[in-house]
Amino acid sequence: MPNSPIRITRASVIDLRVPTSDQMLGSDPFHKQPDYSSAVLHLETDSGLRGVSVVFTVGAGTDWICYGIKDLCQLIIGSDLAEFTAAPIKLYRRLIDHHQLRWLHDGVFRMAAGAIINAMFDLWAKSQDKPLWKLLVDLEPEFVADCIDYRNISDALTRDEAVELLKSRRANVAQRETEMSTLGPKAYCTAGWLGLTDEEILATIRKLQEQGFDSFKLKVGRDSDEDVRRIKFMRDAIGPDCNLMVDANQYWGVCEAKEHVDRFRPFGLKWVEEPIARDDVLGYVELSETFADADFGFACGEQAASPVIFKQLIKSGAIKFCQIDAVRVAGVNDVMAIILMAAKYGVPICPHGGGIALCNMIQQYGMWDQIAVSGHSDTQLVEYIDFLQEAVSHPVQVQDGCYVTPTAPGWGLEFLPDFIERHQYPDGDVWKNRAADRKGAAFEV
Amino acid sequence: MPNSPIRITRASVIDLRVPTSDQMLGSDPFHKQPDYSSAVLHLETDSGLRGVSVVFTVGAGTDWICYGIKDLCQLIIGSDLAEFTAAPIKLYRRLIDHHQLRWLHDGVFRMAAGAIINAMFDLWAKSQDKPLWKLLVDLEPEFVADCIDYRNISDALTRDEAVELLKSRRANVAQRETEMSTLGPKAYCTAGWLGLTDEEILATIRKLQEQGFDSFKLKVGRDSDEDVRRIKFMRDAIGPDCNLMVDANQYWGVCEAKEHVDRFRPFGLKWVEEPIARDDVLGYVELSETFADADFGFACGEQAASPVIFKQLIKSGAIKFCQIDAVRVAGVNDVMAIILMAAKYGVPICPHGGGIALCNMIQQYGMWDQIAVSGHSDTQLVEYIDFLQEAVSHPVQVQDGCYVTPTAPGWGLEFLPDFIERHQYPDGDVWKNRAADRKGAAFEV
Repeated sequence: MPNSPIRITRASVIDLRVPTSDQMLGSDPFHKQPDYSSAVLHLETDSGLRGVSVVFTVGAGTDWICYGIKDLCQLIIGSDLAEFTAAPIKLYRRLIDHHQLRWLHDGVFRMAAGAIINAMFDLWAKSQDKPLWKLLVDLEPEFVADCIDYRNISDALTRDEAVELLKSRRANVAQRETEMSTLGPKAYCTAGWLGLTDEEILATIRKLQEQGFDSFKLKVGRDSDEDVRRIKFMRDAIGPDCNLMVDANQYWGVCEAKEHVDRFRPFGLKWVEEPIARDDVLGYVELSETFADADFGFACGEQAASPVIFKQLIKSGAIKFCQIDAVRVAGVNDVMAIILMAAKYGVPICPHGGGIALCNMIQQYGMWDQIAVSGHSDTQLVEYIDFLQEAVSHPVQVQDGCYVTPTAPGWGLEFLPDFIERHQYPDGDVWKNRAADRKGAAFEV
Repeated sequence: MPNSPIRITRASVIDLRVPTSDQMLGSDPFHKQPDYSSAVLHLETDSGLRGVSVVFTVGAGTDWICYGIKDLCQLIIGSDLAEFTAAPIKLYRRLIDHHQLRWLHDGVFRMAAGAIINAMFDLWAKSQDKPLWKLLVDLEPEFVADCIDYRNISDALTRDEAVELLKSRRANVAQRETEMSTLGPKAYCTAGWLGLTDEEILATIRKLQEQGFDSFKLKVGRDSDEDVRRIKFMRDAIGPDCNLMVDANQYWGVCEAKEHVDRFRPFGLKWVEEPIARDDVLGYVELSETFADADFGFACGEQAASPVIFKQLIKSGAIKFCQIDAVRVAGVNDVMAIILMAAKYGVPICPHGGGIALCNMIQQYGMWDQIAVSGHSDTQLVEYIDFLQEAVSHPVQVQDGCYVTPTAPGWGLEFLPDFIERHQYPDGDVWKNRAADRKGAAFEV
């Protein structure tokens, strides 16, 4: 299989939406009624293999991304996988540096480009019958380094530095792979969603503890007194030795954040996540200086739009935890750059999970990071949410508070055909049988 | 008219593209073959008035923005103009803080939202038979201050500061309006496009000088020796007393930029524009420190995606010239915030023009800034390009090196019906008679 040509013959792009707002799981101060959704890309080939990727969204707007992905597919239909695997940076540049489309900036454009790149990597890994992490681990340092666009980040990471860093880990890769052959990255989970009562939070914690979790997150950003009360409640529930993190989902400005976060000092938090806007680099610098003596560090990245933003957050020391997302930036090439920058500056990779099948993807990056880039598992936590795992044929699994090492080829992102059929928007059964006003809820809350 | 209700009955969104790459005007190191284009929004009403706005692009991708604008139009069809004018921040929040669409981030989403807001302001100004600058000048300080979303910028500008700043200018507004009643903001023009020979550049300079221009810009970013040679050529051609600026269109990384820009020291440049990525705030801080003793300052903003990025560039002192664009951020509300932040920190507003009819829009902001916000015309230069003015019924005009004060109602953005018909993509005459490979040039250069 790997030696015969694999030609991309057709692409289908599916607008998949799940009416999760019915249950209010996943809600935060901004996203009051999220309907977890994905633009799903299927790249069909003449080999029978299919490249799959997703761009996660929260409902309305999924169609915008589908529109963009369809347009970009023009660049790869008819091409051979081998053209891509010879030098993935070429496709990356054709997309991101496209001389007209680049005007569209980050956001929809970069996410759509990422969908293409991630589907190509999926296809590549499947053609070698490897999970994605194993494909990445097996790449030569020079090859990885050549996947990266250094134009805007070379003041933080040069090609030589990338090669040197990866080479320095090489001697231990086999051992690290063995160590992670059964259990993968240590995981954490949100127990304190905004919509939950204290009793529901406690029940969630106890259930997670039975699965071996010792690291829990709580959503904050509403009322300051209530936030503090809930943090104290969580800390009391989990005891002093468990990790506790809070997440404000960018709800505050810099001055507000200082006031609120100051009240969080006594509770031994590990991190404070997204206190301010995703791209307010100087705001993060200011916060990190203000709270330099606190127990916690700041975490950010799930909505950081590009490696340029990550570069600034990492190099400045403003964030102590780097929360890559698998589908916000332009795919594997961008994420490689970010993980390597974080490794150089000693910032642990703690990826953002959840959504629909995002955890299937981020566990791959956690594996690659901990085997071949940072080369250890001492400081990282990878987000885990068991949400919507009924959608895929290879659900993520946890054991003893860690991801079970993924073995399915590629990202392990195969959706069940029935799930896709029922949740296609707006014609799937789940949506077409809903009252018109419920569908329209996407637009007005 | 202003007192009878004006209801928005219908929206049309037009994908307008001009094959400007035939002439290579407007090209830069990234945008090798730009086809100047616009997503044009027409909001029709039951009053006969039409709200118009554009989002400028460079060809491929215009349809992505059209797609988004059409989706957002659902939020305003059937509404009354008076609902908007009562409190423009409400529509702004419905768009930018939309609980699902906000996931789409900046770029296409924010530009599409800006199209809606700008068309509403156009309609509002037309309902009062005023050019847009006059509508803005006549708004009460408190009203302007209430148009702004302070969530992410209050560490740089509070509502009270905005009100105080605008009030402090109030006593001089009538006089400033009189002073600018015939000639508006001082203009500058690019004479040194990358595609032009020395002779063509010289001819352009002489023609501009006949129109009273004394401020000229040159594109750089190719070969360093050639850049220096061309800067020297331009300086020699215009003499020591004219303003000379260079523009690298984000072509360099931080380290490269330092090397290149260091060679530009001897030529008395006014500014160095976009030496690095549009959102590399810490990169700009580093450059501004490195070149603190140089004649020039740094200029940036035409592709800065949001007020958060502008806040950082302005507050840190990293940029000395703030180059707002009229259609990159979310319309008048965002631009008001940026102009007010710049005024507070003493950074001159030097808007980005060109494209299709962008100058029609930015002259309005130049007027508002110089009459009512900064309240002077001592330091600003507003970009002027006479390109594609045959597209609109109210072309911008210059006299004595200044914009002629615009008098057409609204933005003055009415396109000639014939121009629209011929340039609609892909069915207008200009495109449908082209060979398929020329249309496809959008995708491969």
